[in-house]
Amino acid sequence: MKNEYLLLTPGPLSTSETVRQAMLKDWCTWDDDYNKEIVEVIRAKLTKLATEHEGYTSVLMQGSGTASVEATIGSSIGPNDKLLVVDNGAYGARIAQIADYLNIATHVVAPGEVSQPSLDQVKTALEQEASITHVAIVHCETTTGMLNPIEAVATLAKEYDKTVILDAMSSFGGIPIDIGDLGIDFMISSANKCIQGVPGFGFVVAKQSELEKCKGRARSLSLDLYDQWHCMQANHGKWRFTSPTHTVRAFYQALIELEQEGGISARHQRYQTNQTTLVQGMRSLGFRTLLNDDLHSPIITSFYSPEHSDYQSKSSMTD
Amino acid sequence: MKNEYLLLTPGPLSTSETVRQAMLKDWCTWDDDYNKEIVEVIRAKLTKLATEHEGYTSVLMQGSGTASVEATIGSSIGPNDKLLVVDNGAYGARIAQIADYLNIATHVVAPGEVSQPSLDQVKTALEQEASITHVAIVHCETTTGMLNPIEAVATLAKEYDKTVILDAMSSFGGIPIDIGDLGIDFMISSANKCIQGVPGFGFVVAKQSELEKCKGRARSLSLDLYDQWHCMQANHGKWRFTSPTHTVRAFYQALIELEQEGGISARHQRYQTNQTTLVQGMRSLGFRTLLNDDLHSPIITSFYSPEHSDYQSKSSMTD
Repeated sequence: MKNEYLLLTPGPLSTSETVRQAMLKDWCTWDDDYNKEIVEVIRAKLTKLATEHEGYTSVLMQGSGTASVEATIGSSIGPNDKLLVVDNGAYGARIAQIADYLNIATHVVAPGEVSQPSLDQVKTALEQEASITHVAIVHCETTTGMLNPIEAVATLAKEYDKTVILDAMSSFGGIPIDIGDLGIDFMISSANKCIQGVPGFGFVVAKQSELEKCKGRARSLSLDLYDQWHCMQANHGKWRFTSPTHTVRAFYQALIELEQEGGISARHQRYQTNQTTLVQGMRSLGFRTLLNDDLHSPIITSFYSPEHSDYQSKSSMTD
Repeated sequence: MKNEYLLLTPGPLSTSETVRQAMLKDWCTWDDDYNKEIVEVIRAKLTKLATEHEGYTSVLMQGSGTASVEATIGSSIGPNDKLLVVDNGAYGARIAQIADYLNIATHVVAPGEVSQPSLDQVKTALEQEASITHVAIVHCETTTGMLNPIEAVATLAKEYDKTVILDAMSSFGGIPIDIGDLGIDFMISSANKCIQGVPGFGFVVAKQSELEKCKGRARSLSLDLYDQWHCMQANHGKWRFTSPTHTVRAFYQALIELEQEGGISARHQRYQTNQTTLVQGMRSLGFRTLLNDDLHSPIITSFYSPEHSDYQSKSSMTD
């Protein structure tokens, strides 16, 4: 069965035939050939892809990527804690919406969909509101394709000793990053984005010492990140509840194919070439981009573009 | 890729080669060929399989079956409501555990793992505790394979005008039932049980008027049953967040194969024959069953076995 079209990032995107063929076998959720030889290998590979630092671990969660974001928000933030959310698109807004469902206090920095967040605004909030304990930001905001200045925001948050949560849904695997270098405590992504697996589960790579603090904090059984991690850790890859076995096996194959391509840096190079080709081609057809070029993912032009942090003028949005 | 072994109910169980082959194509989550032609068809078929009564609807939920149970509990029970849970196994206990996470008041009737619930005990609770608004029970309790007397419990609950929630995880599709006949308001099951799809999502068939009452009640964004249903209903099969497309397509194929087998009654017949063959074979090898024969799923021996409702003696558990 061939697809008649290509599905592009942020996905769910087209997968390789070999990734899909990996789903042609059934798996027993209790057996070592699934738990130890697939799930545990995936967990180790994900942790390694996310950071070279020690002290990190990973956990897979059933459901959509949003479920993994909610599991992280709902498990890591205590009843008296407060979350600063950077919202410059639908996925930043979704984090604030999740916090609202869970009755978690928030401070939202919302520069609008076509602007990077103002570091001054983030800094002022962190200085003036001592009750803020966590900072959440989206790496690549799917809404516009904007690449957010996570290095600057994470560094700032760490200066104020905050726990940092990164939604790297549509960047992880396609854009190089070391979450340990940035002091990120929880990074969330999903199977069907830049790793190029099929949809069905998400995952979180976390600083283990921070994850251990989540014990007993979750507001939901299904979305209890600590409990899920603890079960996998104690039982060599066993999920608490039935896992999407075929999807997980396909993801294992997708990780092998990422390695065969040359790892994240090679994939990043390909994605950049694709993006440039697409933008140039569409421009030649008369289309214009919403964002200025230096805000486009997956191209890393600078660590932070302060000149665009208050970027609001619609006329300057085109080239 | 052939499996070297058979995975039996309650699953995840072995699927047919054709069900797995249905996963060899990618799908766009925004297109009609997925939403209208697969998701909407699945929803209509599920509703029809669950009841011939009018006024029922269905909704698919990402994640494990437990996530769908939690979505139902967390979306249908208001902050001042109280849930009576029949717990005679791990899955009854899990419903009570979910309620505990969500700070929902419960009254648990727990006759132990090898007994059916006492109707008198349920009746007394309903009579004495006016604050009880919902009753939840598991149809086939996976722990022991016991078939619970859902007809009797649902009838009783309806006499007292309670909302009835049925966990039919490992029975729906394999045991004939009409939830409209029984007055069941919410019935939960999952893709990888008796419909014989691959794991990755669950579903709820609900009385629409009851589902509509869930608006604004959910304790979780990802597990907001009403919001999920409303999005699917208003947008012709569109899921709120990325769905497990390949798993969903496989499930569509599994539903066709259920029809080809002759529907639920034919499958039930096959499951009964398999169960009898297995029990007889293992008995001839010297094994003994934990439960008396008249409590075994999927065999419907009677509507209710009161003589076993206080069945506790270990010596009488063997044949």
